[in-house]
Parts: sequence; structure tokens; C-alpha cells
Amino acid sequence: MKIYRFKENPLITPLDVPPLHKNHEVIGAFNAGVAEYKGETILLLRVAERPLSNVENIVKAPVYNIKSQSLDIIEFSTLDTEYDFKDPRTIKKRSDLIGFEYLTSLSYIRIARSKDGHNFEIDDEAFIYPFNEYQTFGIEDARCTQIGDEYYINFTSVSPKGIVDSLVVTKDFESIDYLGNIFAPDNKDILIFPEKINDKYYALHRPESSNLNKRDVWIATSPDLISWGNHKHLIKTSEGDWDNGRVGGGLVPIKTDKGWLEIYHGATKDNRYCMGAILLDLEDPSKVIAKSDKPIMVPEESYEKEGFFGEVVFGCGGIVKGDELTMYYGVADTSMAGCRIKISEILEQLD
Amino acid sequence: MKIYRFKENPLITPLDVPPLHKNHEVIGAFNAGVAEYKGETILLLRVAERPLSNVENIVKAPVYNIKSQSLDIIEFSTLDTEYDFKDPRTIKKRSDLIGFEYLTSLSYIRIARSKDGHNFEIDDEAFIYPFNEYQTFGIEDARCTQIGDEYYINFTSVSPKGIVDSLVVTKDFESIDYLGNIFAPDNKDILIFPEKINDKYYALHRPESSNLNKRDVWIATSPDLISWGNHKHLIKTSEGDWDNGRVGGGLVPIKTDKGWLEIYHGATKDNRYCMGAILLDLEDPSKVIAKSDKPIMVPEESYEKEGFFGEVVFGCGGIVKGDELTMYYGVADTSMAGCRIKISEILEQLD
Repeated sequence: MKIYRFKENPLITPLDVPPLHKNHEVIGAFNAGVAEYKGETILLLRVAERPLSNVENIVKAPVYNIKSQSLDIIEFSTLDTEYDFKDPRTIKKRSDLIGFEYLTSLSYIRIARSKDGHNFEIDDEAFIYPFNEYQTFGIEDARCTQIGDEYYINFTSVSPKGIVDSLVVTKDFESIDYLGNIFAPDNKDILIFPEKINDKYYALHRPESSNLNKRDVWIATSPDLISWGNHKHLIKTSEGDWDNGRVGGGLVPIKTDKGWLEIYHGATKDNRYCMGAILLDLEDPSKVIAKSDKPIMVPEESYEKEGFFGEVVFGCGGIVKGDELTMYYGVADTSMAGCRIKISEILEQLD
Repeated sequence: MKIYRFKENPLITPLDVPPLHKNHEVIGAFNAGVAEYKGETILLLRVAERPLSNVENIVKAPVYNIKSQSLDIIEFSTLDTEYDFKDPRTIKKRSDLIGFEYLTSLSYIRIARSKDGHNFEIDDEAFIYPFNEYQTFGIEDARCTQIGDEYYINFTSVSPKGIVDSLVVTKDFESIDYLGNIFAPDNKDILIFPEKINDKYYALHRPESSNLNKRDVWIATSPDLISWGNHKHLIKTSEGDWDNGRVGGGLVPIKTDKGWLEIYHGATKDNRYCMGAILLDLEDPSKVIAKSDKPIMVPEESYEKEGFFGEVVFGCGGIVKGDELTMYYGVADTSMAGCRIKISEILEQLD
């Protein structure tokens, strides 16, 4: 199977995105959901901004304050033995076995637009910025499903209450209507199928079962896109060397003659992220027809291997024209890249 | 506020329940959902059976085998350094920071029936026994909501895939219809409100956010009792001395003139379980009107303080007659007890 990476890669880097907040730097412009709108390619960039710190031994955590509608910057001394600063993304309490207390950056969604799919212009303002108590640590990893002329955008909302998935809808990529939190904490990587199947909406989701140490993909149904149930287990982590840590949905499922094609991510326990593929029954997507036993894409290029968090390819959206999939994917938790793949060649790889 | 504990307490103990499995002992008959049916009080007992072990240093884990429709008994040596056997309820991998690998008992739901609410007869057979891949470690803590002449029974399904909440419905407490998994892992303590409110069903639930170290109560809505969304945060753990570890719904919410009264449990980090109370808006139960700042009930009697896991009062259901609530509650993760409380006196305790 051949992957044609764009020669312009990376397409968008943090240097292309001016920060919205004073005294902040953009450290990530990545993991974008994708849409086609009025002949343009829209990337729903996750922009991560970090407070500048000129003082040694000080780590800062930005927290959105709903009342003041601005960021509170909380400062920690790296000499404070109550906390653990090893992971550059988080501030943990040493007494907590897992999880985190604060994030070191705040993410929100900002639009990049392109007429040719290769060269992007970035909006001056945020498109989806924290607006409620579930988003005080930020908004991450938007995914976009077009149903008719409506674009349903779901994303990860992070706050001290937990990690939930929230849904908004837009018709114009200017204004949004908020539809609520659609999956309870902790859950990520929700992918809504682009049409009803036997009168039900379907979505992939990745709940965390900490009690059983599982980060697997599940599938659920809905009558209205807001309420989800009938949860079934779908894709498990393997003992293999690319997906033994976690798996999660990637692109909005693609309808093919042979079934629903889902391109998803698998990560090792060391957080190396690759992409795999699975084929689901057209009439009942909770049934697996075929699955790739190896990843279809692994970090190879320098922009995929090196960055804020290296060794990551993380597809969140694509555009399909006949047999050709243009996939946009986050690289190294830092930037955005693009590639072309023949869908027929992906299907040939599945058992 | 006065709590009139039944003089017959504990009402049902493991000694009253003959095991269904050969070479097993019943170690728990507790945490029962409650219903009134044809003039009888029905307790949906959680019966926990443990494989007998006569050999020192051997711990056994029962796992329901779907194919053979019988229990596989997996044996572990307590000398095996890969595992941790400190908690008598679970077998953990030492390499895992949290969670468990196996349970040391298998639970299922069995009915106890009473004409006077004090003296119970226990059915010879299971009422809800593991029947699918989500229940191979057992079925725990049923809750029952009557809507019209249908009784909706939800319970915790435990398997290596995670801890999900499942729903069945019955009209006769003989046969059940399975309606699916209604909350994704890990989630427990789901309480369905007994009527639609502004054309929506409501439920309390207790998802786990391990990333943020939260075990709080949330509220969700549904059009059909199967699909749930619009998740909102409702009751948080406090810094106090009775509910700093976790909180979770207890009884099916009780409609009063002043609002929906929810009697819920709070536990310390050391797993001492008490009961608290909260009043929710009649028209929008996601709004909190009042809350008790102290527990309304704490473990006091010997049968509440001593047992398989002592210091636990854990209400799962009640019967309301005018101002009088008869609450049935699990004690010490072992047995069932009952008490009477005046609803007006609970309401007086709320701020």
C-alpha cells in the first residue's frame, strides 16, 4: 500500500499561528477535524497555547475562568515536592497514582481554510473557545461529520470534572449551536457516522475503564445524535507492538461497497501512535468484517518523529473522491500534515 | 432526624441463601434494588458466591464462560509475585497502578419476597444471571424503577472489558427483556427517575474520571431509557470526612412537593459508606435546590460496622407511603437491613 505524503508537509506548524493570548506561545496546531465547505477544505485545528515563562523553575497552568471570561495563570515551582512535572503536558500530584491535576497549555479550535487542500490560511480568531464549566482546561481534537447541510462537530472538553465529549452543530463555520455533552467522562475519540443506519445514528467512542486497565474502542447508537446507548465493545488493544497501550477512532467512517472503513489510531504504552484500519458491516457496524493486523501508517518522516511529543501520526479527518482518500493528520502532537491513499489499497490490506 | 432500624435486622444474611454453584459459599446477600409487586415487597438481592478453597495459599477466581454456560475457576498461588491479593475482593497485577484483573467472587441477582416487608423468602433460582460477554465477572447492585406497569432494572455488568451499566425490563419478575448496555465503562450507581420530566427521562450516574481522579454523580437525559446524553455534573465529593472518596446515587429519586429527593451514598477514601440527601428541582433535576452537609445515616449497628467489608450502609431502594420511607440497604457488603425514616424530617435537614 502506498501513502503519498504531501511534499509541502508539514502543512501547518505552530509558527504559522499567532497566539490569541498575551504572553503565550503556540506550541501545537494539530489533530484537526476536516470538512469540505463551499469548495474549500476546512481544518478544525486544535491550537494549544502555553503561557511564556522566563523564570527558571516555574511551570504555569492556564485555566479558563468562566466568570471573568479570561485565563487564570496558576504558577508552580518545580521544587514543590507535592507535584510531578515530568510529563511536559501535565502537572500531577505525586500522591495520585495516575491522572493529572492541571494541563500546561490550553487548547481551543481554530479554522484553517484552503482552496487547493495544500495551502492553508488561518483565521484570526478562535472558532470554538471554552464556553462552559466542562472546558476550563480547554477543548481538544475536534471531529466533524457532515449530515445533509449540517456539520456536527464533536470535541474533547477537559476540566477538573473529567474528560467529556461535547457536540456543536454549524451550517456556516461561523456560528455554532451547542448540543451538550454527549459522552460521560472519561471518553475521547468520538466519531459519528455520516448517515443513519437502519434508522439509528452510530458513533465510535473510546471510554476508559481504569478498573480493568482498558482503552478500547466501543460503538453506540442514538436516535438524535445527543443521547447514546446500546454500547458494544468493538476494537481492543492487542499484545502487538503498535497498539498495546490504547486504540481510538480516527477518521469519520467511510462508506465503501464492502463495508464501513474506519481508519483508527493505535498507540504503544510508550505513546508511539500509528494508524490501523478496520471494516465494519454496512447494515450493522457493531460487526467487524475485517481488520489490518499491522498498522497501515507509521511515523517515518522527521516531522512525524520529532516534535512536542514525537513518534505520532494521528488522523482525525479526510476527504474522499472516488477511490482516493486525502487524509489530514496530526504529527508529533505539534503540526498538521496531509497524504493521499487509495481506499482500494487499504481494503486489500484487511484480512 | 430519627431512623427506625428494623428490630429484625439484618433481614437477610448470606446464611439464609443456599449457593447455586457446587463447591461455592455465599459471602454476600446485599445491595438489593427494591420493588412493590402484587402487594409484596421484592428485593433484587445481589448474591455473591465464592469458590470454596481448602488449600492454603490458593485464591480462586470464578469467571462465567459464555460458550460452556458454566463457571471456569481460575487458581492463583498467593506466592505468585506477579499478583497482589491484599484486597479480599480482587486479584490485582502488581504492575498495574490501579484497578483489578479478576474478582474473587461472582455476583448475580436473586429475588427475596415478603408480604410484611420484614420477613423474606428467597427464590431457589437466580433472577438475572450473567448472559453475555459484558457479565463474565458478574452482575452487581440492581436498581429498579417502576414506570407504569413495567419495572426497569439496571445493574452493573463486570467483565475484562470494563464496568458498564445494563438495562432489562420485566412485568412479572419472572422473565426479563434485555435492552442493552446503557452507560459506557466505567460507570456505576445509575438511578432512573420514575417519570418523564418535560418529555425527557432522567438518570443519575457515577462515571469515573481516572484522569482527574473524580468519582462524582452526573445527571443525563434520554428520549427512550436506552440512549443517554446531555451529561451534567451534579454532586461532587467534598473535602469532608464522610464523602471525600466517592459519591453515588442510592435510591430511585423520590418526588416530593419541594423537589426530587435523592438519598445517595458518600464514601471516604478508606471505604466507609454513609448516606446523604440532596433535593433537585422538580422541573429540571440538573438544578440542586438543597443538600445535607452531614450524612443523614452512618454505620452504627454491629451488622453495619462488621462484615466482609465493614463500615458500610448502602441504600439501593425504598418504598414510600405518604411521609414514610421504608429504606432497604446493604450493610457491610454482606447482608440486607431495613429502616423507616420520615421524608419530612429528611427535608428539614437540607440547607
